[in-house]
Amino acid sequence: MKKAICLVSGGMDSGVTAAVSKSLGYGIYVLHVSYGQRTEQKELRCAKRVAGFYNARDFKHVGIDYLRDIGGSALTDEDMEVPGADLDSDEIPVTYVPFRNANLLSIAVSWAEVIGADAIFIGAHCEDFAGYPDCRPEFYDAFNRLIETGTKEKGIKVETPLMFMNKTEIVEKGIALGAPFELTWSCYKREDVPCGECDSCVRRASAFKDAGYEDPLLF
Amino acid sequence: MKKAICLVSGGMDSGVTAAVSKSLGYGIYVLHVSYGQRTEQKELRCAKRVAGFYNARDFKHVGIDYLRDIGGSALTDEDMEVPGADLDSDEIPVTYVPFRNANLLSIAVSWAEVIGADAIFIGAHCEDFAGYPDCRPEFYDAFNRLIETGTKEKGIKVETPLMFMNKTEIVEKGIALGAPFELTWSCYKREDVPCGECDSCVRRASAFKDAGYEDPLLF
Repeated sequence: MKKAICLVSGGMDSGVTAAVSKSLGYGIYVLHVSYGQRTEQKELRCAKRVAGFYNARDFKHVGIDYLRDIGGSALTDEDMEVPGADLDSDEIPVTYVPFRNANLLSIAVSWAEVIGADAIFIGAHCEDFAGYPDCRPEFYDAFNRLIETGTKEKGIKVETPLMFMNKTEIVEKGIALGAPFELTWSCYKREDVPCGECDSCVRRASAFKDAGYEDPLLF
Repeated sequence: MKKAICLVSGGMDSGVTAAVSKSLGYGIYVLHVSYGQRTEQKELRCAKRVAGFYNARDFKHVGIDYLRDIGGSALTDEDMEVPGADLDSDEIPVTYVPFRNANLLSIAVSWAEVIGADAIFIGAHCEDFAGYPDCRPEFYDAFNRLIETGTKEKGIKVETPLMFMNKTEIVEKGIALGAPFELTWSCYKREDVPCGECDSCVRRASAFKDAGYEDPLLF
């Protein structure tokens, strides 16, 4: 059976990504990375539940507190405020964590080399293009080139199955595959109930509304 | 003044790399990463002393124990033996730490974005080509492309000033620039006196001999 590492943050995008990797016949190894983000405990619990739902062969929780120490993001710096939703802005949001996805993927590749995985799945997608530079297709193309040049084990590839879907299409895909949305968390600010006001909450609500489904998290 | 992050392991290559970056007029920020390698405490002390020697503006020590947990290398796995020197082998040595340099550079880029650094210096060089895939020029070209695509701050570049030098030329360069070889450590196995038998000890001794200098570490 082919092996895949799935980066599972606990959010809905990575939950649907895990669903896609399972539907493609991979045995999955779940990697959850904590980097000092505000809602880390909640996200870890969600990631574990998603891993359990998909019978992951292994679950690895890696803490990289240095990203909090380095700072530069409202997601990791308590002195910076997480802003309200501004979906039309062209600027890189203050919730951007510098080069985060390169850090996450590098960990995944190290693990992939040791277990002999064929693929690494990550839930990056096009609605984040404008905002986060490390979510663009060019970034993943460059990362795959980096893997080709820098690994001992050959053939490892980063897969981004949601790349050209918008958030509504991600909800539809997840529903079609039976992804456990009720086990995922999106809010940037709170861990008990979604704040409903941050960028991430507003995007999730809007996606479920446009797709014509009710978010099971809210029941 | 231009700013550079210097990856300083505590070894002689990164000591000479720090010397090069200073000679080019950079203010330097030293990044030392521990990843569960055997001689970590010694290397940390050496890195701090090299940073002090070059009046580093900041010293950041980041621990990424997950590389030890992931394993797959004789440098981090106590159950795997560090072999004796075999300088003619074409195989990737068991001391290869899977995708290590991508992990290290990703941390450096995150920090570079926050402090506004122009460059990241790393002491990779051609004698490691055959052995370590993440020491090849193609790997660094690919990494610079990754930075171009994946960062908010533009213009950060990884510099590898030792890339096309052999170990003897690195010693000569360091001597010319007054690099503090006496503050550096190369042995993979011991922290008190160099074992003199591991790959790294043998290469260092041979380089000093060929360059016609005595290694100040041994006095």
